Amino acid sequence: MAHIAVIGAGSWGSALSIVLSDNKHHVRLWGRDEDQINEINEKRTNQKYLPEIHLPENIVGYTDLAKTVDGVEAILIVVPTKAIRQVLQEMKPSLKTAVTFIHASKGIEPDSLKRVSELIEEEIPQQLRKSVVVLSGPSHAEEVSLRQPTTVTSSSLQIEEAEYVQDLFMNKHFRVYTNPDLIGVEIGGALKNIIALCAGLTNGLGFGDNAKAALMTRGLAEIARLGIKLGANPLTFAGLSGLGDLIVTCTSVHSRNWRAGNMLGKGMSLDEVLENMGMAVEGVRTTKAAFQLAKLEEVEMPITSVLYDVLFNDKHPNDAVEELMGRVKTNEVEDLSL
Amino acid sequence: MAHIAVIGAGSWGSALSIVLSDNKHHVRLWGRDEDQINEINEKRTNQKYLPEIHLPENIVGYTDLAKTVDGVEAILIVVPTKAIRQVLQEMKPSLKTAVTFIHASKGIEPDSLKRVSELIEEEIPQQLRKSVVVLSGPSHAEEVSLRQPTTVTSSSLQIEEAEYVQDLFMNKHFRVYTNPDLIGVEIGGALKNIIALCAGLTNGLGFGDNAKAALMTRGLAEIARLGIKLGANPLTFAGLSGLGDLIVTCTSVHSRNWRAGNMLGKGMSLDEVLENMGMAVEGVRTTKAAFQLAKLEEVEMPITSVLYDVLFNDKHPNDAVEELMGRVKTNEVEDLSL
Repeated sequence: MAHIAVIGAGSWGSALSIVLSDNKHHVRLWGRDEDQINEINEKRTNQKYLPEIHLPENIVGYTDLAKTVDGVEAILIVVPTKAIRQVLQEMKPSLKTAVTFIHASKGIEPDSLKRVSELIEEEIPQQLRKSVVVLSGPSHAEEVSLRQPTTVTSSSLQIEEAEYVQDLFMNKHFRVYTNPDLIGVEIGGALKNIIALCAGLTNGLGFGDNAKAALMTRGLAEIARLGIKLGANPLTFAGLSGLGDLIVTCTSVHSRNWRAGNMLGKGMSLDEVLENMGMAVEGVRTTKAAFQLAKLEEVEMPITSVLYDVLFNDKHPNDAVEELMGRVKTNEVEDLSL
Repeated sequence: MAHIAVIGAGSWGSALSIVLSDNKHHVRLWGRDEDQINEINEKRTNQKYLPEIHLPENIVGYTDLAKTVDGVEAILIVVPTKAIRQVLQEMKPSLKTAVTFIHASKGIEPDSLKRVSELIEEEIPQQLRKSVVVLSGPSHAEEVSLRQPTTVTSSSLQIEEAEYVQDLFMNKHFRVYTNPDLIGVEIGGALKNIIALCAGLTNGLGFGDNAKAALMTRGLAEIARLGIKLGANPLTFAGLSGLGDLIVTCTSVHSRNWRAGNMLGKGMSLDEVLENMGMAVEGVRTTKAAFQLAKLEEVEMPITSVLYDVLFNDKHPNDAVEELMGRVKTNEVEDLSL
């Protein structure tokens, strides 16, 4: 059984720790907040992020990053993308041999326009990492922690590393599929948060399920257009980390990005929303990054573009949705073409 | 402004009548139930199917089929697929010149394995129909009748006929896109009800959103596999009448097929469910037809196949879902390949 460091004790980090622990691995769950880590070690709970869930004994909470990564086989990064570079820089001096880096964070860095796997490659020297694997798919943390059936994708440029991660996590409740298309899996996982923000926005404005379904359909098409331009396999967007994750994130009131969009639609400002959430809302930064990428790659992304204006240029959400619904093209296949 | 016959005064027929009426057309809304048609003409309501909605004055209810179709430009068929042949046979003697046939019914006929447009072509001689157009997409009737933003696809082998129907229905709230892929639009619209039944089934069994998203992802892949084998354009399944309609039908508790599946999952027998619903549940017949089609065309359709066993071979729903979650393939792209 492997020793694994899970970097990030939020809801998803805790839920994935439970999966690893169910598979008899030794899990070191790292977070900065001493009270939270003490709660994990003493009460076996993580009330703020996974209420009512019992964390098994083979999950041990850590606040010392050097000790967390010392001698582990694999490191799972599951902090907000904004915090990833810093946490990697902090752990680097403590790494001695090459380990497998896994990440389950969904975002793209604005300005550098790097995916999370690229951030890891940039910050961690090659001799200290076996490879980078991403774990992504339709997976509410709460359901995973309750051992509800869940399916995700493990992806890496080296398929045997994706299979290693598949073996670490796979069990009766948590099924892991491999996919060699790292770009497609990361782009789908990151950009679906843009569509979730928009889905929340339409709900906050009082629009119904018909509008949301149209938005999600168009949204997946524009995500795929960008992804394919960046080298992804079109089929990946029809899979768990594309369509599957989009469905879960856009149709559940538990999704943070959906909730943030809903508040925006009801008239709150972005600053008020972010303060109100108190947790990372990845979609906001990802909208910025995707907007920049679309411009650079000359890909048409009308939903991303309109949301960008709502978030950063004071466009009124109502005007944004009117604009999206009133688009000019009337031939569907032309509109979906990649 | 055109005179249009709407054959079927259920929720979808009534909602589409409202769209046509908003566009100033003269609508004849036909149903067999005299009390219901009297209610429409006298009270301007259709309480059983569209509670609380006011039907405008230019919608006139009819029970006489010959009078309904006399001299109209277009006939919109929106009865359950089971009733289509009979209603076409009944109206045939009253048709004098060629009219445009539009349908908004979603199903495939078991045994004959015909799509609805093929039923119309079979029952109505060529000199009495200009062409057959299907209208399909993510559209809860209740939302359409409330003028909530909605987008649908109009499809016909003759694109100018699809455009004619687009013009009839298009307005500020109800946006119509054309797609020349008649097979793909009909297959997507019909088969999504199978996945909705399954989504309800998993909910009835106590499974969560993660499982549902996985099911929908796999479901769309198997619908596309069959559709492509039958000659459809793969892109259609990523569009409004494929993915869009799948989302609306699987994620709303208002969907009849979802509700029927939910009751099955909670332990009711199929007969009890159908009696309890009191309205057509298209997915049940469509499962039979799709199962037969998959066999004939040698296409792998694991979800359809398992649901067929639940509906017609007394397979226990729990075993069905276990079987689906525990499938052997572990490479995602291989699983999604068309």
